[in-house]
Amino acid sequence: MKLLITGGGGFLGARLARTLLARGHLAGQTIESMVLTDQVSAPPDLIADPRVTQRTGPLQAQCPALHHEFFDGVFHLASAVSGECELDFDLGMRSNLDSTRALLEALRHAGQASGKPARLVFSSSVAVFGPDPALPLPARVTDDTLPAPQSSYGIQKLICEHLISDFTRKGFIDGRAARLMTVTVRPGKPNGAASSFFSGIIREPLAGVASVCPVDAQVSHPMASPGKTVEGLIAVYEASRDAFGGRLAMNLPALNVRVSDMLDALEQVAGSAVRARVSFVRDERIAGMVGNWPAAASGARASRLGLVPDESFAHIIRQYISDCQSTPGAELALNGL
Amino acid sequence: MKLLITGGGGFLGARLARTLLARGHLAGQTIESMVLTDQVSAPPDLIADPRVTQRTGPLQAQCPALHHEFFDGVFHLASAVSGECELDFDLGMRSNLDSTRALLEALRHAGQASGKPARLVFSSSVAVFGPDPALPLPARVTDDTLPAPQSSYGIQKLICEHLISDFTRKGFIDGRAARLMTVTVRPGKPNGAASSFFSGIIREPLAGVASVCPVDAQVSHPMASPGKTVEGLIAVYEASRDAFGGRLAMNLPALNVRVSDMLDALEQVAGSAVRARVSFVRDERIAGMVGNWPAAASGARASRLGLVPDESFAHIIRQYISDCQSTPGAELALNGL
Repeated sequence: MKLLITGGGGFLGARLARTLLARGHLAGQTIESMVLTDQVSAPPDLIADPRVTQRTGPLQAQCPALHHEFFDGVFHLASAVSGECELDFDLGMRSNLDSTRALLEALRHAGQASGKPARLVFSSSVAVFGPDPALPLPARVTDDTLPAPQSSYGIQKLICEHLISDFTRKGFIDGRAARLMTVTVRPGKPNGAASSFFSGIIREPLAGVASVCPVDAQVSHPMASPGKTVEGLIAVYEASRDAFGGRLAMNLPALNVRVSDMLDALEQVAGSAVRARVSFVRDERIAGMVGNWPAAASGARASRLGLVPDESFAHIIRQYISDCQSTPGAELALNGL
Repeated sequence: MKLLITGGGGFLGARLARTLLARGHLAGQTIESMVLTDQVSAPPDLIADPRVTQRTGPLQAQCPALHHEFFDGVFHLASAVSGECELDFDLGMRSNLDSTRALLEALRHAGQASGKPARLVFSSSVAVFGPDPALPLPARVTDDTLPAPQSSYGIQKLICEHLISDFTRKGFIDGRAARLMTVTVRPGKPNGAASSFFSGIIREPLAGVASVCPVDAQVSHPMASPGKTVEGLIAVYEASRDAFGGRLAMNLPALNVRVSDMLDALEQVAGSAVRARVSFVRDERIAGMVGNWPAAASGARASRLGLVPDESFAHIIRQYISDCQSTPGAELALNGL
């Protein structure tokens, strides 16, 4: 089978690619080739795999050629992040809405030419949920909670969910939208996502660097480790349409934790000196956006697929440490231990 | 004030224009000029009004010029109807999604240039609701029911609701989406809407013409008269943002009736010979689409704006007869009475 991963040079896309290449198969088919598209280059270990081709550049510009190239399966992860979409409205519309539509049109045409619709997994986001003045957020958002996004990023993700639903209903693709929880701990540097600090307050102290938390310690949020997130995307791909259940987006499993729980776990795993590197300085822009996000989520449909949340936040931190230890050149990431 | 009505040549747009011109004011401002855009020409009485300018042609082609023209208020009614969107996917995407986005961008730019965002009322539709395999329809859809459109038309309307919500949150426009119930009785000829027969089974018998109902007599559906629908659009325009309540779309009031109730009302108003002109021949395509529509709707937010449903379906029929009687040249429409 031939797979496409958009955003395949990014952290999550590369981890997904690596996991799939190590498995060697997906939904009962052997993975013969994999195309990674991204604005940035994929990690060297992926490029070195003979099954992998990478194509760098904006996704939208690559889509016209995709009208004539058939893929069995697509993981569409490419996205501008929440913070940058809020700062630059047009960038978000272009990167998240126009690119997705161009990709769907390409898959539709290639699928019609080959007589077989491509299967597509789309990474939507828990950011589709928010409190509208006419409808406050429930204590815990479920698969069936009415989305009321309070950010352009959330609106764009929600719109893409519905486009994918309709392209699927029409038989143009076999699409499934999965709402990702906030993926923590992300390696590397802070990015433009308003949720970036959820990783920063763990990653920076472990590297021996001070970190500032821009929200209150009592803020609660639904999280998932990179490993659980990739596992969820693969399970959504492999599910039968009946098991996926309908065409509405599905929440992936969430571990619902407060910032204070995260720091308690950090202390438990890495000691009090590491925890002490985190200070609190409220950032109104970030706190305002995060205040409009769900405090907790649950995923009944995901659990029917056999997916479960991370066991604890300490497990998530240990996964991050173990990832750094197995990554050549990542010693600095654990300098503070 | 200067108003724009897209779809202003259509049945509902023309009726709205006529109502507004007769009032002479809107939200406390005098209506000085009104632009009607449509693919078709507006009725002569509207064109004759010195306040009215009409512009015919596709809306999207007119939008670049609108970047440089400020409107205080916009009623965006232009739309391809459900049946044609289902038959021609690309037409629906272009007419309903691309045109709306082009209009929103134009209003954004004109509003930024003038320092004042235009107020916009968008006619969404009860067709955003539907049964997903993962989530059956409730017996009655409310403002807060999770939309799961089962038609491209419904998806496009829902996407536009969310675009308008985000353009409003960003301060680009002051937008309000109102979900119209099925407008009955429409005059004239059947159109491409899958709901067209709801008018046809009343209009045709009154004109002395046989009519075929493509669905079962027990099918129930939320309806509104043209008069109540126009009243709703104006009330939504005039509401303060607080009174409108949030940025999610609002259901307009619905009279929930079965086809058999409609025919009973027809007999009550026009006699059994008129009713006898309706026969039942199931059309699977239409029945399938209608079967995915809500059987009933309620509008708690609309009722807080003081809006109420039509009193009865007999009232709706009498409104239609009275409209025909006051329209020069419409005698044929009541030939069967």
